[in-house]
This record gives sequence, structure tokens and C-alpha cells, in this order.
Amino acid sequence: MDPFASPQNLDKELRSLLAQASSNLCDWFAESASQGPMPYSFELPEVYPAKEGVSNDVLLSELQLLMDGSYRPSHPGSLAHLDPPPLSASIAGELICAGLNNNLLADELSPSLSSLERNLCKWFCHKLGLGDLSGGVAASGGSLSNLMALVMARNNSGLETDPKAVFFASHDCHVSFSKAFRIMGLKQESLQKVSTDENGALNISSLRTSLNKIKSQGKKCFAVVATAGTTVRGAIDPLSEIAKFCKKENVWFHVDGSIGGIYGLSEMTSEIVQGLGFADSLTINPQKLLGIPKTSSLLLVANKNHLSSTFSTGLPYVEPISGNDFHGGELGIQGTRSAETLKLWIGLRQLGEEGIEKILLGSIKRRCYLESIIDRSKFKIISGPLHLLAFTPINYSSSQSSDWSLKTRNSLLANKFMLSRPMYGHRYYLKAVMGNPNTKFDDLKMLANLINHSIS
Amino acid sequence: MDPFASPQNLDKELRSLLAQASSNLCDWFAESASQGPMPYSFELPEVYPAKEGVSNDVLLSELQLLMDGSYRPSHPGSLAHLDPPPLSASIAGELICAGLNNNLLADELSPSLSSLERNLCKWFCHKLGLGDLSGGVAASGGSLSNLMALVMARNNSGLETDPKAVFFASHDCHVSFSKAFRIMGLKQESLQKVSTDENGALNISSLRTSLNKIKSQGKKCFAVVATAGTTVRGAIDPLSEIAKFCKKENVWFHVDGSIGGIYGLSEMTSEIVQGLGFADSLTINPQKLLGIPKTSSLLLVANKNHLSSTFSTGLPYVEPISGNDFHGGELGIQGTRSAETLKLWIGLRQLGEEGIEKILLGSIKRRCYLESIIDRSKFKIISGPLHLLAFTPINYSSSQSSDWSLKTRNSLLANKFMLSRPMYGHRYYLKAVMGNPNTKFDDLKMLANLINHSIS
Repeated sequence: MDPFASPQNLDKELRSLLAQASSNLCDWFAESASQGPMPYSFELPEVYPAKEGVSNDVLLSELQLLMDGSYRPSHPGSLAHLDPPPLSASIAGELICAGLNNNLLADELSPSLSSLERNLCKWFCHKLGLGDLSGGVAASGGSLSNLMALVMARNNSGLETDPKAVFFASHDCHVSFSKAFRIMGLKQESLQKVSTDENGALNISSLRTSLNKIKSQGKKCFAVVATAGTTVRGAIDPLSEIAKFCKKENVWFHVDGSIGGIYGLSEMTSEIVQGLGFADSLTINPQKLLGIPKTSSLLLVANKNHLSSTFSTGLPYVEPISGNDFHGGELGIQGTRSAETLKLWIGLRQLGEEGIEKILLGSIKRRCYLESIIDRSKFKIISGPLHLLAFTPINYSSSQSSDWSLKTRNSLLANKFMLSRPMYGHRYYLKAVMGNPNTKFDDLKMLANLINHSIS
Repeated sequence: MDPFASPQNLDKELRSLLAQASSNLCDWFAESASQGPMPYSFELPEVYPAKEGVSNDVLLSELQLLMDGSYRPSHPGSLAHLDPPPLSASIAGELICAGLNNNLLADELSPSLSSLERNLCKWFCHKLGLGDLSGGVAASGGSLSNLMALVMARNNSGLETDPKAVFFASHDCHVSFSKAFRIMGLKQESLQKVSTDENGALNISSLRTSLNKIKSQGKKCFAVVATAGTTVRGAIDPLSEIAKFCKKENVWFHVDGSIGGIYGLSEMTSEIVQGLGFADSLTINPQKLLGIPKTSSLLLVANKNHLSSTFSTGLPYVEPISGNDFHGGELGIQGTRSAETLKLWIGLRQLGEEGIEKILLGSIKRRCYLESIIDRSKFKIISGPLHLLAFTPINYSSSQSSDWSLKTRNSLLANKFMLSRPMYGHRYYLKAVMGNPNTKFDDLKMLANLINHSIS
């Protein structure tokens, strides 16, 4: 078979390859429940290209080995992390995206898809309450969205080359911010971590004290990061209060809504993340709960011009764009990009607003249910208003809880439940993420039973 | 249809959706030649999710609108940029990747696929002459790979927070380096551009002079960037000489091989990019010529430890990895990532070493042929040893060549040839990229004829 489809004649071999791959993928889904979340062991196919290319049959059997050795996000017991099973329509969308191979770098390389991205970002901005000047750009992951926001905030403050410039975020902010300051050429103390309250949310009075302190040291602040959905317990920082604070102090307000921002899409849940619309910039990750295959992250900004003023370099080798807008490659860190918004768009069309709401509400219901059946006389449970909860035995020493977490995680895995084991506040927890729509109440009953019996 | 495939039963609706999408994609390929590289106009489907989700039939017809409004990289006249048609096997690979939805952040979220990435990077390192300590990581695009290399180089030099630290690259280096210094908190003059020779390659004696100059100003250098394949003409900087220079000066040697590095994979062409193996870090973009659907970029490093020492933050919520290695999220800027190496791996397996060689040699042959039939009495041609060439009328003023380039680009487009129109040395050129395997010598004859008649 010619490795490239003909532009003149129907490539029947390609069609049959894709049909067979699709069929194998459907079988993989169908057998997921009879396997576990994780393979016991796995075998890799041939990694290196042979001298001659191999046939489609060989490719398919090699693909099968990789599939057999993969994590299975759709297993009902897959509750470890923020990787839900993918939406059917989005799988089809990604297939088309790969076939088109358009480039979001410039409109002339992706006419319809560049427009789609612009319009879809506008929809998100509108739903989440950002104003008329708002807009956004897709990025390959939340770490990139957060990094772009910080670079933009620093650029906007005129502190571009001040390695002592400071930004604030809570102790429970995502690790990507620790990566960001290194990339940005900032000192370690540029990331000033603010204490959290008993719910895991940023303490606003500590923020005030911390800002005054760095000011008295002659340092300047270019951003405050609020987390809407912390990694371990899904806590929401006080968005409206921080927004007010930032406005008064004339500091950029970034919301890392990678985990929780998506709840702003439904009226039934938007109260949880009230204040999102005050953000100067906002990271939102449809890859985390809505089932858009990764990566699917958006950076939304209240004033879209800040993106281009920070990242535009001119593209001296493509045609200028008509109107006031900028090419996709001028709005962020990435240049060449695939049309990641295609799978986002088609997934949302498949769900409809009602389907989105159902996912959001379902995730919270599952968390509430599990929370209600874990034995509180044995466990300390930490959770917020979202779909995450973590727990650790009460009255255990730190080393006892470490032993318990390891042992219990393994025994849960043997029972086909996969939870993660985060370190939080110098103590190990087990953590369940309730983003898997295949997890039923009966599964949770079984899980809680195993958990409750993990200590005598 | 349930938007998520069941983990217990075969989802026939998903299978039929994927089969239909595949079939539509195959039709889209088959009709490409009868369309042009660019749609004359396009219509967007409904962008926003409706209240209720829509049926698969509606989704497919909406997808079709997007496809009709897309750029067609497989049209034989699509020669504008570095976006070739995609390999058949890689389209299937991307479909599977979306379905698995595994996460390269951590091994426990992508057991077989994390191993695949590690092993495939090793293969590239080996083929390109990097040593025993080498390794790499996939990144969503060359701009990210280049940025990661610079951050790593700066980190390694101990100049992490010196905004005056300098790196060198030629005047013809990629625009991503201009973006990089802003992201990294460096001053504009941190990117010191070195003059090029008459072939568009970095002038090594200018490099020497420039380094001495910044040293006398008390500034320090953390990297020299060599470009293996410049954007407009595909020039190759003198890699071995720069490597020697860097070794003597104890400065990090990064090769931006986004365009040309791939020629190092075949013995028939590797001489063109001799010296790649001396790099401390190397960007290579299989998305640009091999037909791996974007994005597909690798950052390879001579000593893999430099990746983790620069980007590792610890991942307090996943299980530690066994052995000496690091999780995927600890080796670069990105955290959550899809398994981009899956489509790279399967594409290489489909091609085999012979297929890779055929693509590389074919691209050069087409460039040589076109170069030989453009009328040199009318045009100045600039090109290098690769698959890129650009040309502009001789004896035209700058404004005449601007008029000519616009008019000619449009009339070529009307004849279904799409070239790009870069500004180079204060003058407009037209540029042809010979990475499209569907372009035949007859097409090129027609193209040259149009070009030669574009001026009287």
C-alpha cells in the first residue's frame, strides 16, 4: 500500500485500515470491564522501523500489543487521576483532525479550523462571564496555558526582565507553577506561596500580609493565581475576593481553572466557581472532566490583545491576516499546532448543554455518595464542592498512614479499583476522582466497603 | 447513543460513527486533486453546542463542512509550507491514541506508551549520533522543543536568573527564538543574531567576533543555536565547526533541526547534516517532512539527565517510577500529554528505513528538478541542499518584486499551485517546499512554466 492516500482515487486500503483499527478500538472498550484499570504486565511491539515497511496486518497486531498494555480510563474502577474515558464523537474528531493535518499556525493553513477555534473560544468566554474584548487560544495542556498566562501577566506589568518579580498562589497550587518560574527566568522565591484555610482555599488575609511584605522588600508583584479546583481535594479559592484584591492592587488576576473551571458552563453548578468572570486570564481544561481526549486546554483572556502583544513575533513567511486579528501562531507559545479544538467542538455538539450538565452533576453526585459511605469514625476526608476527595486514617502516625496507603492502594488495585496516593500536608492520602461516567453507585459501595475494611 | 463507549458491550454506534468518518475522510482525500490546495470560500458548521446533543448524522454532516473548508495538503500543488499530507498508518495511530486517552504525564497512566516514547527517542538518538547517555522527550511542536532546549542550556550554565544572559543564532533562525527570549525573561538583546554567508549559513567568524564583544561587555553566553534547515531556503549552518567552537568556549550547542534534522536518518542523506551528533540538544520534527500528522516534534539531548534536572518538580500525586528514570511530566515543559509518539512510531514502522529514505531522497530530487527548470536569466534562486527553494526576479526593485510576488502568488493559486511568499533580505520571494510526495515532475514542469511566464 502507498503510505500516502492518493489525491485522485479512493484509497480502499486506507479505508479498511481505519475500519479495522476502529473495530479493534471498539473491542478494546468492550473488554475494559473484564480487565483492570492497569495491565498486570505488558509487552512492547517492535519499536524500531525495520528495513522494509510492514503490512497493515502487522501494524494492527502491533497496535494491539500497545492497546493491551495501556491504562484503561473507561474501567469503572479507574478513579486515580483526571483522565476520563473519551467522548465517542471526539475520537472521530481526532481521526479527521489527523487526516486533514491542517496547521493552526496560520489561517491560510487551516481556514475553517482557525475560524472554529476563534468562535469556540468566544463561546467559552461568554459562558464563563468574560467581557466583550475577551478571546482565547487552545494550548496543548494546562501547564502551557498557565505558563502563557504568567508570561502575559509579567509582560503586561512591565516586569519582563526582573528576575525578582513575584507572583502569588496558594500552597495547594499546581506543580506547573514551580516549573513556570524556572522557564521564565525567575528566582525560586518569585513564587510566593500563600497559606490555605481549613478547606484548602487560599487565605485572603495571608495574601494581603504577603503582598505587603514583598513590597517592603522592594519587590514587585505581577500576578495572583487563584486555583479553582486544587489537585488533591478540589478546593476553590475565594475568586471574587481575590479579584477585588487584585483590582485594588492593580495586579493581574489569573485563575487556574484546569480542574474546576468547567463547572462554570452550567447554571446548575456555576455558583461553585462564582467569580471566574473577573479573571484577567483563565485556564480551562475540557480534557479533565468532559471527556475530550487530551490534550484539550484553553487559555481565555479578558482582553485578547494581551495575547498578541505578548507572543506576536510577526510571521514573515505567511500572508497577513485580514481584519484586526492575529494568526494562531501569534497568540501563544506554540507555533505549529494541530486543530485541537476540533475534537472539543464536536464533543460539545454531541453532548449538548444538557449532556455537559449531566456530566458535571453526575461527577458531584458520585463524590457526595462516596463521601457519605466512607466511615468517618475511621477516616479523615478532605474534599471540596467538586468531584475529588481524599482520605486518610485518623489517629495514625505519619509513617502508619504511609504504610496503610501503599498497602491499601495495592489491595484496591487487586480488586480493580485504582486510586492515587498523594502526599498532602506531610501525610499520605488515597484520592478518588469521580470523573468516570462508567462508575456506578454499586461500584462505589464496593469501593467504600474495601476502604472501610482497610483498617480494623 | 451514549456519548461514552460502554466498558462491557460492543458499542456498535461508535463503530459505525468511526467507519463513516473514515469513509468520509477517504473521500476527502480522493477528491483533493479536483479541488485546489485552498477552498475558495467556506462555511462554518454550528459552532456552539445546542441545548440537546445532536445525532451522529448531524455530526458527520457538520464535520463535512469543516473538511470542505480545510487546506488540502495532499493536493499535488500544495507546496506553500512545511505541512505534508499525513501517513496512512499515522492517521490510524492517532485514532487509537484518542481512544486510549492515556497520559504521558506518568507511567501509571500510560504504561506501554511511556515505554514506547523512551525507546523511540533512543532510536532517534542512536541514528543521529548522540551518545550513550542520550535520550529525549516528545513535545507538541518545534517551538516548544527549542524553548525547552534554551531553558535547559541556561539552567546548565548557572545563568537561570540573569536577564542579560545571551544566546547566539543566525539572522535566519526561526521566529520561535524571538518568542523564547520573552518567555524566558531575557532582554531583547539576549538573542544575538549572527550574520550569514552567501549560502544563508551562519558565519563562524562573525560568531567568534560577536562572542568576544559580549564578553567584553561583561555578559555571559549560555547557548549557540545552529539551524539545520533555515525556514526560507533550507540552509545548513556549519554544524561541526560550531560544535568545535562551543566545546572550546564551554557553551551549550543546540541544533534546531526542525526542518533538516530528519535527513540524518538515512545514510544516503546524512552527510548534508553532518555534525548533528555533536549537539548537546537537538530539535527534530517528523511532522515536517515524514508525514507524521502534527504535532510531532522531539527534543533529543546528549545527556538525558539535563532534562530532569531542569524540569523535574516532583509529582506528589503519582507513584514513584522504578529505576533511574523520570515520569514523562518531569522531562519537559508539558505535564499532561497525549501519546504523540504513537503516530510517529507506527508511521515509521509503515515506512521502514527504505520508505523513510525514499521520502528524503524524493524531496531533494523534486527541489533539484524545479531548480533546474526555473529560468535563471529571469530569477534569482536561493536554496540549500534540502527540499526548499525560493526565487525572486532579478533586476527588480524591492517594490516591483513585492507587486510581482502578490500577483504571481494569486495567479498560481488560480492554477492550483500554492506557494508561500516570504520576506527575505528586505525583498519578497516566492517559496516552494518540496515535501509533498504527490507532486510529480509533470506538475513541476507546469509550475515552472507559469513561473517563467510571470515576468516578460
